[in-house]
Amino acid sequence: MSKNLTSRAEDYSKWYNELVVKADLAENSAVRGCMVIKPYGYAIWEKMQAELDRMFKETGHQNAYFPLFVPKSLFEAEEKNAEGFAKECAVVTHYRLQNDPDNEGKLRVDPEAKLEEELVVRPTSEAIIWNTYKGWVQSYRDLPILINQWANVVRWEMRTRLFLRTAEFLWQEGHTAHATQKEAVQEAEQMNDIYAEFAENFMAIPVIKGLKTESERFAGAVETYCIEALMQDGKALQAGTSHFLGQNFAKAFDVKFTNNEGKLDHVWATSWGVSTRLMGALIMTHSDDKGLVLPPNLAPFQVVIVPIYKNDDQFNAISEKAEDIIKALKALGVSCKFDKRSTLRPGAKFAQHELQGVPLRIAIGPKDLENDTVELARRDTLTKSTVEISGLEDTIKDLLDKIQSELFNKALSFRDEHITKVDNFDDFKTILETKTGFVSAHWDGTAETEQKIKELTKATIRCIPENNKKEAGVCVFTGNPSKERVLFAKAY
Amino acid sequence: MSKNLTSRAEDYSKWYNELVVKADLAENSAVRGCMVIKPYGYAIWEKMQAELDRMFKETGHQNAYFPLFVPKSLFEAEEKNAEGFAKECAVVTHYRLQNDPDNEGKLRVDPEAKLEEELVVRPTSEAIIWNTYKGWVQSYRDLPILINQWANVVRWEMRTRLFLRTAEFLWQEGHTAHATQKEAVQEAEQMNDIYAEFAENFMAIPVIKGLKTESERFAGAVETYCIEALMQDGKALQAGTSHFLGQNFAKAFDVKFTNNEGKLDHVWATSWGVSTRLMGALIMTHSDDKGLVLPPNLAPFQVVIVPIYKNDDQFNAISEKAEDIIKALKALGVSCKFDKRSTLRPGAKFAQHELQGVPLRIAIGPKDLENDTVELARRDTLTKSTVEISGLEDTIKDLLDKIQSELFNKALSFRDEHITKVDNFDDFKTILETKTGFVSAHWDGTAETEQKIKELTKATIRCIPENNKKEAGVCVFTGNPSKERVLFAKAY
Repeated sequence: MSKNLTSRAEDYSKWYNELVVKADLAENSAVRGCMVIKPYGYAIWEKMQAELDRMFKETGHQNAYFPLFVPKSLFEAEEKNAEGFAKECAVVTHYRLQNDPDNEGKLRVDPEAKLEEELVVRPTSEAIIWNTYKGWVQSYRDLPILINQWANVVRWEMRTRLFLRTAEFLWQEGHTAHATQKEAVQEAEQMNDIYAEFAENFMAIPVIKGLKTESERFAGAVETYCIEALMQDGKALQAGTSHFLGQNFAKAFDVKFTNNEGKLDHVWATSWGVSTRLMGALIMTHSDDKGLVLPPNLAPFQVVIVPIYKNDDQFNAISEKAEDIIKALKALGVSCKFDKRSTLRPGAKFAQHELQGVPLRIAIGPKDLENDTVELARRDTLTKSTVEISGLEDTIKDLLDKIQSELFNKALSFRDEHITKVDNFDDFKTILETKTGFVSAHWDGTAETEQKIKELTKATIRCIPENNKKEAGVCVFTGNPSKERVLFAKAY
Repeated sequence: MSKNLTSRAEDYSKWYNELVVKADLAENSAVRGCMVIKPYGYAIWEKMQAELDRMFKETGHQNAYFPLFVPKSLFEAEEKNAEGFAKECAVVTHYRLQNDPDNEGKLRVDPEAKLEEELVVRPTSEAIIWNTYKGWVQSYRDLPILINQWANVVRWEMRTRLFLRTAEFLWQEGHTAHATQKEAVQEAEQMNDIYAEFAENFMAIPVIKGLKTESERFAGAVETYCIEALMQDGKALQAGTSHFLGQNFAKAFDVKFTNNEGKLDHVWATSWGVSTRLMGALIMTHSDDKGLVLPPNLAPFQVVIVPIYKNDDQFNAISEKAEDIIKALKALGVSCKFDKRSTLRPGAKFAQHELQGVPLRIAIGPKDLENDTVELARRDTLTKSTVEISGLEDTIKDLLDKIQSELFNKALSFRDEHITKVDNFDDFKTILETKTGFVSAHWDGTAETEQKIKELTKATIRCIPENNKKEAGVCVFTGNPSKERVLFAKAY
């Protein structure tokens, strides 16, 4: 393992890519834009999945599974949605390969095996799911439908980056059906709240909840709720979205129900999702020049024990202590790994665990054996202390809680320091280029202005914050009247 | 919900299809051969996943994720594997749709967006994974690699049936890399043992462990281990396979390592998988003419409480009891649902829970309130009894254990009664047509004979059982010498 990462100050983007690969989170594959998620990275994703799944089920949702493929005729049924995704679809056109007669030992697509109708690899599943819901809904008694799916989706992005933008990614997509507009809106809001709670309390990532403008909305949505996070380089990252879809999909797929007054109406819909993109948010919120920094909630193992010894007797004595510690920690619900590899020196192990963000490291050497102590090192602060073994498990348990909340608070301070009120376009541009972060500015509410600002500065409106203060002003770009400030930023 | 299923005696295949749909397990989708797994069916699959995942991790495996797509040039690298799957591959040839100029509002494949190299939707992931492992392995210190993946795969089968054979299915696929042949063989055997343990102890499905013959082996494997189960209609079902792949994939993808003597060698491989096909095995092992019968380990909820009441007072009093029971059961790790829907009568609820295989049903009516009793009904035996509420949770806990083991024993008796020793070909054919099940017969060891028997009887060699008794004899078809009996059966 090569030792040092490029520093963030030197090249943030390079630092990110190196960290992802060197910390064994993911790597590029032989398939353009598709990644391999390595075991250590996948273990973090599994922690996210487990917690989200718990939260979804607690709020009455059930998991199900719908097909990977969407027949073209279904895909195009909801026009805005189709238009939004058509340009980045992987399309299956054939169902068989055959031996290539011109090329011994090679295969070619069998021209006889052309599909009558092309199949789109799902970029999102509204179409196939609403076509299915049509068969499930007749009366208000069949509603609500509260379903989530864990799945892979494919969007043929031209520029890809590990976790942040990949042609194939893993996600969950909730798709719910409701009898009333009010209930659907509440669902969309509830799920955005759940994403915010998950991001803040579990991932230690502060987020701003809000609404997307029309031009940033999900294709086919009436309203898109989102959570926006701020990365260390001052760029925003959309960490989750929840859409109120109105009756758009119900109309496209003719999903009607008899309401409790006996009248036919179209069903109301939501969809909501978060993806492996969250791994990118995690990395760029907490990590440093030494590598990954993991909130304890997300660490595949929260504590690692490294033995320092010169002979078998010392190793055996340390092992005994280590096993006791692991047992005591396990009883408190803390995961701990004993790194007893004989192929690596302690220094190399330290470097690896630092790079991989293990929250706490315990080192035990001969002196510790004599004194009944260990050396305890925090990954987030890179501080070390000598601690008595007696009561160690409680010390660690408390420390993990402390690390979790300190990581959040640190990110929150950074984020809050990087929301800047701006009242003229020169300041707007200067702040974006120098201080970076979110710019809170008045906007005249038109897509035209939004587009022009984007062209001039690369900044987009990340969201209109929830419970935004109404405040009369003039648009930072056109000088036209505005009712409230919105948040602009450059974004991932 | 329509009441009655076609009986098994009348039409087993129709019974199966009806049960899958009516018990809300799965349904066909708009995509040829692809299914929608409905929430109740998916919840059962999640129970299987959780247990298997636990067993894999306990034996040192980690999860990871590899791309959905396999570039054609990688796909064809291991020739036997490619040959085995080429005929049933979904192939992505384009990455964009565009508006169809001849057809307002419709889309067509953009002819400009043809991929330089076609992508195969993975039918199995050896190729993409071994191409990745090439970058991970240099020395024996990098081995073993013990990885599992939970994923969807696509095999363009011509005749499909819900769960049993679908174009897309969900599965896990383990892919391991080892320094020695011995270690790889042990891994393949270990995983087959784990599958057997899971099938028997968790799913209550008795299985026979064994080896496939050459013609039934996985394409690219040196040896295929399998577990074979027997369905109620006397047909066998391959419930899981574990392959020793030798150095075939390492050679195809040039994966070499320096062994501990400093010499270069190709890496040894295994792969192993079970799929949503297990849902079919589950249904066809335990269920009856009233619907699904679930072993308690696999039930989304193990107990359901149905209140029987004429007025609100009664309902409230029953609810109170129900909540107490649910709480007491939860403390014992038993899942229980209170079915308080006001839109259905008790009889309709009983029928639904029977159809969906809830292991135990509690009914509480006004008389039960007076007597501090409940009516307890077993789904597997369809027997009812009146039981005192005091101590009910322990009664239920014991009963669930009993149901789990009785279901296994019942299936085991059926299976054992349906293994018939046969010593001539007339008996062979008769048994297959009348008694059905496994036929234990001598075979001369040639693929030719195997093929002829298959053509004449539709029976295949399901496996050469593990620890098979060596016993000299003559082939039931050719009369040529044989060293042991093998198990034939018609199979799903």
